[in-house]
Amino acid sequence: MKQVSITVQKFSFALLGFTLLGLAQLASAQSVDPLPSWNEGKSKQAIIQFVAKVTNEGSADFVPPAERIATFDNDGCLWSEQPMYFQLFFAIDRVKALAPQHPEWKEQEPFASLLKGDVKAALAGGEHAILEIVMATHAGMTTEEFELIVKEWLATAKHPTTKRHFTEMVFQPMLEVLTYLRANDFKTFIVSGGGIEFMRPWTEAVYGIPPEQVVGSSIKTQFEMRGDKPVLVRLPELSFIDDKEGKPVGINSHIGRRPIAAFGNSDGDLQMLQWTTAGEGARFALYVHHTDAEREWAYDRDSHIGRLDKGLDEAVEKGWTVVDMTQDWEVIYPYQMK
Amino acid sequence: MKQVSITVQKFSFALLGFTLLGLAQLASAQSVDPLPSWNEGKSKQAIIQFVAKVTNEGSADFVPPAERIATFDNDGCLWSEQPMYFQLFFAIDRVKALAPQHPEWKEQEPFASLLKGDVKAALAGGEHAILEIVMATHAGMTTEEFELIVKEWLATAKHPTTKRHFTEMVFQPMLEVLTYLRANDFKTFIVSGGGIEFMRPWTEAVYGIPPEQVVGSSIKTQFEMRGDKPVLVRLPELSFIDDKEGKPVGINSHIGRRPIAAFGNSDGDLQMLQWTTAGEGARFALYVHHTDAEREWAYDRDSHIGRLDKGLDEAVEKGWTVVDMTQDWEVIYPYQMK
Repeated sequence: MKQVSITVQKFSFALLGFTLLGLAQLASAQSVDPLPSWNEGKSKQAIIQFVAKVTNEGSADFVPPAERIATFDNDGCLWSEQPMYFQLFFAIDRVKALAPQHPEWKEQEPFASLLKGDVKAALAGGEHAILEIVMATHAGMTTEEFELIVKEWLATAKHPTTKRHFTEMVFQPMLEVLTYLRANDFKTFIVSGGGIEFMRPWTEAVYGIPPEQVVGSSIKTQFEMRGDKPVLVRLPELSFIDDKEGKPVGINSHIGRRPIAAFGNSDGDLQMLQWTTAGEGARFALYVHHTDAEREWAYDRDSHIGRLDKGLDEAVEKGWTVVDMTQDWEVIYPYQMK
Repeated sequence: MKQVSITVQKFSFALLGFTLLGLAQLASAQSVDPLPSWNEGKSKQAIIQFVAKVTNEGSADFVPPAERIATFDNDGCLWSEQPMYFQLFFAIDRVKALAPQHPEWKEQEPFASLLKGDVKAALAGGEHAILEIVMATHAGMTTEEFELIVKEWLATAKHPTTKRHFTEMVFQPMLEVLTYLRANDFKTFIVSGGGIEFMRPWTEAVYGIPPEQVVGSSIKTQFEMRGDKPVLVRLPELSFIDDKEGKPVGINSHIGRRPIAAFGNSDGDLQMLQWTTAGEGARFALYVHHTDAEREWAYDRDSHIGRLDKGLDEAVEKGWTVVDMTQDWEVIYPYQMK
């Protein structure tokens, strides 16, 4: 009886595999433009050629589906990051919301300046000031409470210049790259300097990237029983900074294998692109270059946010794809689609 | 033109979805025993009933596929852990292999005892001794070098009593649970106190669990350029202990959502089972109870390895599934299959 069962099971799996293969071939044979918001040009061509190459079983560059790992920076790569990182808008709004419980903030920097509306003065304290703001606003609650806070903020907060919700300011051309890669059996991951638990509540709905495929900076959490109920409490202590040299470390820790494609926009992504392209076989690295002052922002070597300097030189030297936003993208945000 | 392309794409996706649904229904309608190595009884029934409940779209307990997360301890849950954790056999073999480069070990504990073959004396130093052995054998090389070392060891090393390769000593009934859950759109993860990079080189081949779904204890790594080549170097410094209170922390960090099913065998898994079952909706928790001195090992409340004491009481109290290995499992290891 067991023998028969196993045979039936094997047969149905084989049938499923065969049918899937047939459908996939059917789909890829259609001449559908997978990147309709990309203008024709070198960047679009490079993406499509790479995908064709690694998915072609006859090719020397073929990569089995399980190894098709693609990593994406978030700030400035999948959504905008000007005039400052969106997570900082969140933190500032949280400082304002929490101020009534912290009368001492009225006379304590960086909070005092923030509450007076002087963000520049508040951030003059540099990394230390940012860390204080982050810890005061991102720690001290359970992970579930924090998730709700993020979701509520996203539902109401608007960007100061576009007046759009922050999750509307994602890049349509990059959404298409994500979909295109997944349709070709890639697993897409975010690898961002942003907070891992700030991203997870919305990346699945907005990017199609589930929480378990989000890598980011983190603070420590602690398991506690509150009565009968176990909770994870967010502690005001840094755990991991997922930026620069930290990105390959985060990739190794979370994914455990080297990506074959990586997408970024700043020097903070350089080590991720180096780590990705240093693997054997076909590799792909892409920088989004913010060149579009009219439709988005234009900044690179001298920017405090999303500086792209060393990375730009290395990209040119190594022949990585550099997206010229003005030239390469027909639209920037989904809400601009006709 | 774009409009037409998008319509064609939508149609082909709809077609794919429809066909997949049809095949899945076909498969689930067949009366194939998904757990052939499990004897009929309460444990087997509980697993099957849980899966039926959360996958039935009409049921109040239905869980969407994306949220079907199941976590498994490794040592003692997916493979054996006696007479000591298999990773410790690896560490001891590495001490022997590295001894020629460390003449000082001849007079330095815990190495001196280990090299004389007296494991008990070596481990008398407790946690500190184990940490020294781990750091001496698991750090100081790149991540790629370590992966090779693990693979070479697994290919040659044998268990002292069964004389089998360690990866042959996995539990056939648990392999069936993994396959059964995945066939029902669960994502299966390992959440183990063992070393994350000790497991990843073989979990995909042995359990069908890819590296990115393995959570474990870890040491720190550091990004370095060696000439033109970026590497990650393993440092002799603990990063994370994925045991007890650490398991929900590791789950939150790596997966970012709460499992709906968790499988363990010791008090080290208790917090994972508490965290899993404290979520809303249908939840499943299972303990493998090692009761089979003849075919495997029998140990629980007094064991130094895989102690199951508090967890056993809580399982009984809360009605979790407790597998009686002797009663519930028709075979233990795959090589015993007829």
